[in-house]
Amino acid sequence: MGTKSPGIWPIPAGTRDYLPGEARRRRQLENQLAELFESQGFEEVITPTLEFFETMAVEMGEELENQLYRLFDRDGRLLVLRSDMTTPIARLVATRMRHLALPLRLFYLSNVFRYESPQAGRMREFGQAGVELVGQPESSADAEIIALSVKALHRVGLEDFQVSLGQIPVFNAIMDEVRLPENVVRLIKGAIARKDLVGLEQTLDAHRVAGGQKELILEFSDLQGGREVLGRAKSMVNGDYARQAIDRLEEVFDHLGDLGVEESVQLDLGLLRDFDYYTGIVFEGYTTDLGFTICGGGRYDNLLEKFGYPCPAIGFALGLDRLLLARANQRDR
Amino acid sequence: MGTKSPGIWPIPAGTRDYLPGEARRRRQLENQLAELFESQGFEEVITPTLEFFETMAVEMGEELENQLYRLFDRDGRLLVLRSDMTTPIARLVATRMRHLALPLRLFYLSNVFRYESPQAGRMREFGQAGVELVGQPESSADAEIIALSVKALHRVGLEDFQVSLGQIPVFNAIMDEVRLPENVVRLIKGAIARKDLVGLEQTLDAHRVAGGQKELILEFSDLQGGREVLGRAKSMVNGDYARQAIDRLEEVFDHLGDLGVEESVQLDLGLLRDFDYYTGIVFEGYTTDLGFTICGGGRYDNLLEKFGYPCPAIGFALGLDRLLLARANQRDR
Repeated sequence: MGTKSPGIWPIPAGTRDYLPGEARRRRQLENQLAELFESQGFEEVITPTLEFFETMAVEMGEELENQLYRLFDRDGRLLVLRSDMTTPIARLVATRMRHLALPLRLFYLSNVFRYESPQAGRMREFGQAGVELVGQPESSADAEIIALSVKALHRVGLEDFQVSLGQIPVFNAIMDEVRLPENVVRLIKGAIARKDLVGLEQTLDAHRVAGGQKELILEFSDLQGGREVLGRAKSMVNGDYARQAIDRLEEVFDHLGDLGVEESVQLDLGLLRDFDYYTGIVFEGYTTDLGFTICGGGRYDNLLEKFGYPCPAIGFALGLDRLLLARANQRDR
Repeated sequence: MGTKSPGIWPIPAGTRDYLPGEARRRRQLENQLAELFESQGFEEVITPTLEFFETMAVEMGEELENQLYRLFDRDGRLLVLRSDMTTPIARLVATRMRHLALPLRLFYLSNVFRYESPQAGRMREFGQAGVELVGQPESSADAEIIALSVKALHRVGLEDFQVSLGQIPVFNAIMDEVRLPENVVRLIKGAIARKDLVGLEQTLDAHRVAGGQKELILEFSDLQGGREVLGRAKSMVNGDYARQAIDRLEEVFDHLGDLGVEESVQLDLGLLRDFDYYTGIVFEGYTTDLGFTICGGGRYDNLLEKFGYPCPAIGFALGLDRLLLARANQRDR
């Protein structure tokens, strides 16, 4: 090919180069997190950048499936660039690690790929550091993982952050009570997940959800705060299933207190993460130094079963570029 | 998707999972090399996993181009998974780093992707650690980089290895003398690069290369040893161009002596690496503990010009999986 002028050698949208200094800070960040995770008994695993489509999509909503980078191998099989690490690690645990004694404490430092529409803070290739705790269904495991996310944010030097805690079964219980068609539930879930209260009301009105049902959903979507929120939540739901889900949150909160991180955590029952595999507690971390979430995770007790190994699990991932950005913003404050 | 039995969750051919222990050893290896490179004044850079096809293929032979993993982005542009790091770093230097004072000393620790036919030791995704020294045309730069490859192999704990040194212009000069069609030159180059002496003779016979020309090529392809090889090589070639190329090797050897690594290096004038961008010295590292090369590199003085920034450069890459394997074999010896 001929020589071109320098301006026309771009890189694909949503990807980035790391110049000297930037790359060093990223390596240091990775090593800080690797050391922390190892000190807490977690062991690193690495999986391939490419997975077969049927592996990656085993438990994935339509929206995320649409964001997969796809390519065909030379035998005509559909490959994808991994879009998160939880599913590949579930595949790995369910196949090559199923003979090992539980629980397994695993961590990773890997790049993932999502074909997102370009907007501030949304990269299409981005680094994640994360952990998975496999084989422990107890609330103490929930608390261990949430507390580890708090420790990780402290470890990398962030000062001013908050972790919000939601509980998928409470939302499911309320949806069971109001008995709406599945497509409407999906719209409601999407609006609540996006914190789009205007869109939520419009959706409810458009589908003639009115009166007490509308009130219930609107109030639920905005249930945020400390322990006191749990009392209000309990008064809103009927049935053992929903009450147990709220009791579970209370237990987790007690453990978090024992672990000394309760003050970094608040409840947000309207927190619904956009991965279909979550079945219980979900959580996200925020900092005032950045307009996006810097970490997210939750319990996924059914994902490993999809790979033939029924086993509860919980984990989280931190966004490495976002951590670097938040830390830089903090310094500039 | 439904639940499948465990045996049918494979990973793509030529990729691998790293279990606990394996992943830790890889991270330790990467950090050992990063520390060494930093101690020698090299700075890390990171580039995207995806590049536009026209960037990656800017100076690439047909065989390597056929090994690219290709995919289309949603605007219909052809993307590829990077198949080496030298070309992306040349792109980066020629665009965002062209205002910086030369020389630049850069290193990377990255995965690259090649659609190779599956065979022992050939991965389709594999990790590389490498360096690029940009902006120094001198033989002292050649020696610095070759000596750094020796240091790197020592640093990661290998004991029994050898670095072979070739010189592309000597081969080119001999081909100029025998005056064969380009396609025959390519076949000869391929056979010599593969150390396929039977294939080389067959090619020469098939294209009626006989007598003194045949002798010359066969003798050249087998010119291996210490300094004494240079005298023999000089007697084989005519013209200033070829003689200067051999003088250059002699200079590099002198520098390697000054740097105390001469005993780890031998000459192999039949060494021809399979990247089209090499223009001068090329080298490869071998160990008796592994049947494949564990590192390779060379001088590429025309690649940056393709990106609009004429500038000499030299570098090498180490195969991380192969280093781990060689180290394990060494322990088992």
